[in-house]
This record gives sequence, structure tokens and C-alpha cells, in this order.
Amino acid sequence: MSEPTFSDAFRAQLHELFAWRRDVRRFRTDPLPEGVLEKLLEQAALSPSVGLSQPWRFVIVDDPKRRAAVIENFKVCNAEALNSYGGEQAALYAKLKLAGLEEAPCHLAVFADRATQTGHGLGRRTMPEMAEYSAVAAICTLWLAARARGIGMGWVSILDPLPIAALLDVPGDWRFVGYFCLGIPQNESDRPELEQAGWEQRRPISDFVLRR
Amino acid sequence: MSEPTFSDAFRAQLHELFAWRRDVRRFRTDPLPEGVLEKLLEQAALSPSVGLSQPWRFVIVDDPKRRAAVIENFKVCNAEALNSYGGEQAALYAKLKLAGLEEAPCHLAVFADRATQTGHGLGRRTMPEMAEYSAVAAICTLWLAARARGIGMGWVSILDPLPIAALLDVPGDWRFVGYFCLGIPQNESDRPELEQAGWEQRRPISDFVLRR
Repeated sequence: MSEPTFSDAFRAQLHELFAWRRDVRRFRTDPLPEGVLEKLLEQAALSPSVGLSQPWRFVIVDDPKRRAAVIENFKVCNAEALNSYGGEQAALYAKLKLAGLEEAPCHLAVFADRATQTGHGLGRRTMPEMAEYSAVAAICTLWLAARARGIGMGWVSILDPLPIAALLDVPGDWRFVGYFCLGIPQNESDRPELEQAGWEQRRPISDFVLRR
Repeated sequence: MSEPTFSDAFRAQLHELFAWRRDVRRFRTDPLPEGVLEKLLEQAALSPSVGLSQPWRFVIVDDPKRRAAVIENFKVCNAEALNSYGGEQAALYAKLKLAGLEEAPCHLAVFADRATQTGHGLGRRTMPEMAEYSAVAAICTLWLAARARGIGMGWVSILDPLPIAALLDVPGDWRFVGYFCLGIPQNESDRPELEQAGWEQRRPISDFVLRR
């Protein structure tokens, strides 16, 4: 196969995709179109992984009891988080909608298998956390692929990793990386919801670059 | 601004971009076009970050002495890695080209600032590692944006994180996430170099998906 070339028009649309990929917390309850999740997961597997170890592990969570247990864990963790703020910040935090677990038609947990022999350990000797980073790479590919199909995704990190791994009954060497809601967004925006709500603002990239 | 819509043609090209984004280790020595790195970093800042904390920290490494020290660290770590293999696997490992540090015109180190107050800690209470995951998200955006412009990127993880942070003289709360080479690839492929070299193969996604 010959290499693809990408046009200015494609790059402009890719930029739009980056800009309009949001962390979605407000979903319609319509199910995802049949077969789409499987296609998204196939695309996620095109992501880079350390030593080609492909340590990403995806758990599609359909069981209502397990979903309810995840939601319960989120509520406990979120109440603890609220308690850590005071005054106006606590009032603002309490108003934020930080997950779409109740409405989203699709729940997906992602783990990294630290014990995988695939890749024969290459690139993980001094940085074993590369397994998790590879799983994050797959998540990011999936996120963009989803948005390009009009599907929103939200990352829920207000969870306690060990209980989540236990209630999903996954192997002990799998590290919990994130829990994701997928579905059709209620609305689209190129502004993060936390910015719209006045919680935080985006900073210029120059704030984050050093030269050495 | 009204939301963009993405066509089947765009999605097909996006799939090509995912498929042809390689971990590049063989670079031409030509410099990157003027201003391109800055544009790529701006696009990276469109990535998701936990609580809008934007914990990604980019260090553009131009100083020849610091570059030489990074290369020396890589050589030591790579020799130790080689020693951990035996027989045919060691012989194969010794033949792999695992970094393009000598030739690549651009060196970029990425860190995550665990101490940032931006985002007010939202989403990081039970999972402080979300700071690093957000930095990885920025890396993945940058990687795709680079490839869409014909620029290759390679992730070097065969490095010792603490000495790298020290020799780049970054704040103590910054965690080293990865070191990257950028430049024009000597060749393009949709097959990972480790697969071409017979080190490891890509597995079907069905190997990595559970239902619960």
C-alpha cells in the first residue's frame, strides 16, 4: 500500500475535530448504532503501544448491577471531593455535572495489563508505567474516532480504582486507567464544560513550554 | 460557532492517519519547517485534561550538551535492557533501532506537573496519575497532528526518568512522561517497525475485550 498524503483541507478538519472533542457529561439515552462500538475499539487498537505490547484491556459494562455499583462508587468519591472544597468553590463544585453515568447508553472501563508478555517487556524496564500510557493512547484514539461519528465520550476519574477493578472481576495485574461513558451528546461545543461553568480556563500554550 | 460535521470521506482519511501514524526511529536530518513545532504544541493543548488542569509541560531540548547527556542515558539503559534478554531474543534486540536521537532535528521532553493548582484538583483526588494521563493525551494529539503534516515522531522510554528530569533542570514536582524525537521520516509504513523486525505482532482487538 502506498502512503497517504493529507491535504490542507483534511488538516483543517482534523483541527476542528481536536477543537470539538469534548469531555461529554450530558448524553441522550439513545443506544449507539449497532456495531459502532466494535469499530471504535478496532480503531483504538491502531494506537501506539510500548514495545508493541498492546496492554490495553477494554471492559464493556452492560450488567445493570455492576453499573449501579460503579455509580455508587462515583457518588461516594464525589461527596468526598466536595468535602475537600470550602466556601464558593464548594458551592460551584456541587453544581457541576461531572459524569453521565446514569444516562449514557454505553459504559466502558479501560485497564492496562502490567503483566502482559506481549512485547517481551521492551521499553518498560525503566518505565513500567508505559503500559498505562499505552492504554491512554488507545483511549485518545477512540475519543477522536467517536467524535468524528458524532458520538461523545466522557472520562470519569472520580472513582476508587481498586474497588472498580474488583467489581468488574478483572485479573489482578490489570491497572484501572479510566471509566468512560459513550453516547450521543445533548449538545456540542468547542468550549470545555468546566470553562463554561467558571471552574477553570484554558491557558495559552506558552505557559507550558520551556527551552533547554 | 456552529458545530462541524464530519463526512465519510473525512472519517476514511482519519482512519488512514491512525493506521499510518508510526513510532518513527529513522529520521532525515532536515530541520522541521519554521514555526511548525509551535503550531503542533498549540494543537496539543486542545487535548482533554483532568479538571482542565492542563498539566502538560513541554521542554524543547536544543542544547547539544543536554542532548548528548540524554543519548548517553539512553545508551546505558538500552545496554541494561539488552542484558536482560538471552539467546536469539538478545541477538534480535541488539539489531533493533529503538531511537532516532542522533539524527532527529527536534528533541522534545514531556512532563506532567503533579503540583499544578490549575483545575483545583478536580478529578485527581482518587487518581493523581490523571496528571500524567493528561500529558499522554497531549502527546497523542501532537503525534497525529505531526503525521498529518508529514512529520514523524518517536517515543523514547528507554531512559531513566529522574536523571532526565535533573539534566533538563525542571521543577521537582514535574514527572517525566516521555522523550520524543521529531523529524521527517526516512520512510513511511502502516506496519510497526517492531512487527517488520519480527519482535512482536499486532493481535486482533477481540483478544483485548471483555464483557461484564
